[in-house]
Amino acid sequence: MYKLVLLRHGESVWNKENRFTGWKDVDLTETGEQQARMAGKLMKEAGLEFDTVYCSVLKRALRTLNIALEEMDRLYLPVEKSWRLNERHYGALTGLNKAETAEKHGEEQVKIWRRSFDTPPPFVEEDNEFFPGHDPRYATIDKNILPRGESLALTIDRVMPFWHDTIRPSILSGKRVLITAHGNSLRSLVKYLDDMDNDSILALNIPTGVPLVYELDENLKPIKSGYLGDPEEIKAMVDAVANQGAKSS
Amino acid sequence: MYKLVLLRHGESVWNKENRFTGWKDVDLTETGEQQARMAGKLMKEAGLEFDTVYCSVLKRALRTLNIALEEMDRLYLPVEKSWRLNERHYGALTGLNKAETAEKHGEEQVKIWRRSFDTPPPFVEEDNEFFPGHDPRYATIDKNILPRGESLALTIDRVMPFWHDTIRPSILSGKRVLITAHGNSLRSLVKYLDDMDNDSILALNIPTGVPLVYELDENLKPIKSGYLGDPEEIKAMVDAVANQGAKSS
Repeated sequence: MYKLVLLRHGESVWNKENRFTGWKDVDLTETGEQQARMAGKLMKEAGLEFDTVYCSVLKRALRTLNIALEEMDRLYLPVEKSWRLNERHYGALTGLNKAETAEKHGEEQVKIWRRSFDTPPPFVEEDNEFFPGHDPRYATIDKNILPRGESLALTIDRVMPFWHDTIRPSILSGKRVLITAHGNSLRSLVKYLDDMDNDSILALNIPTGVPLVYELDENLKPIKSGYLGDPEEIKAMVDAVANQGAKSS
Repeated sequence: MYKLVLLRHGESVWNKENRFTGWKDVDLTETGEQQARMAGKLMKEAGLEFDTVYCSVLKRALRTLNIALEEMDRLYLPVEKSWRLNERHYGALTGLNKAETAEKHGEEQVKIWRRSFDTPPPFVEEDNEFFPGHDPRYATIDKNILPRGESLALTIDRVMPFWHDTIRPSILSGKRVLITAHGNSLRSLVKYLDDMDNDSILALNIPTGVPLVYELDENLKPIKSGYLGDPEEIKAMVDAVANQGAKSS
């Protein structure tokens, strides 16, 4: 039996401002830092130990990870950072406030962009500041495979090779793994692990900064899974995520 | 031509208390955190860019690195952590205050332990709390090669395989490398790079939290090297390190 822990980064500046974030490298808020510390504390109290860690290359996930590892006194763990664990790329919507976008394009259109499984947002051109090719951290990646805007379906296509080629063999070799990433890159993994259909995964909201612990059998099929921490607080956080994008929020 | 940057961690709690630290995993002081931030700022202002980073598995180096990378907005860089970059292991002296040790054993004996090239401190037995075999971060290492007390000579023997097998090929492949480590693991590298004799390396004091930049030729021979930052401040810091262990300090 294997254990795997998924951790979404704590609240970011743009979560708070309710803006489409995607690959924009925004920092954590103070609340996000507190959530990261709490995540580390919960994992420590639960006696969770890790042999290796995977993380996106975005600051809000990396800082969440560093804060949690400090709290667990496990800063020395090996960490592999990959762009494949990044958040869904929001294309030309990046940086827009969700409520404003809803006013401009209608809530229905925003709901489609946010909640359709395979409708991507408008793509960015190469001269757009949000095209990842301008950022040195993606310099070694063929710009033709860098995302210009992703649906959840496209995010899954980009995330899963890293699961299959790197994370899965690592778990099967006996390593206890922590993955620190984002709402939609983690949805990609949860959809695969729990064998969920498209509608179910769209309805799943993963709270920020709450460790999600999986116990997996020898074929990496889930035996059980659950969040660490207080169930009522977690429900309130899930509801907060679900309500993002409503005009009134 | 290649560039290489060496960075000693910022002031630690036991630097401040003037205790033999070695492999004891003490944290940075607030001054140490400020030094780390300043180191990041200096590297950023100097326009230094890195492709990969090597660091010890000790918290004071890892936190110095994380703080400096945050300051440079380069948290996403790949970091390889190795026990071979750890500080010299102070054996049975670990945890002792240097002035007290000088009163007890005499300043001469302390000077020998601190400043002899190849006299190791008294070794720790396996049941001593400072034997590294008790710490999960060293669980994969044969306990017979884990240090129980090291002279500078033994430290060099332990550090250099990591230089030859990992760091050197990485630099020669064109990667711009940052190494964050400790007074004596960095001395090991400086002795090798600058081809220094035993007495000269013993007289060299590397200040905490000040980036040391090397320009290397195609055979990795130094063309020039120097600290970033204000020369007078650096001299004061070097003097402070040199004076540690005197009874009056």
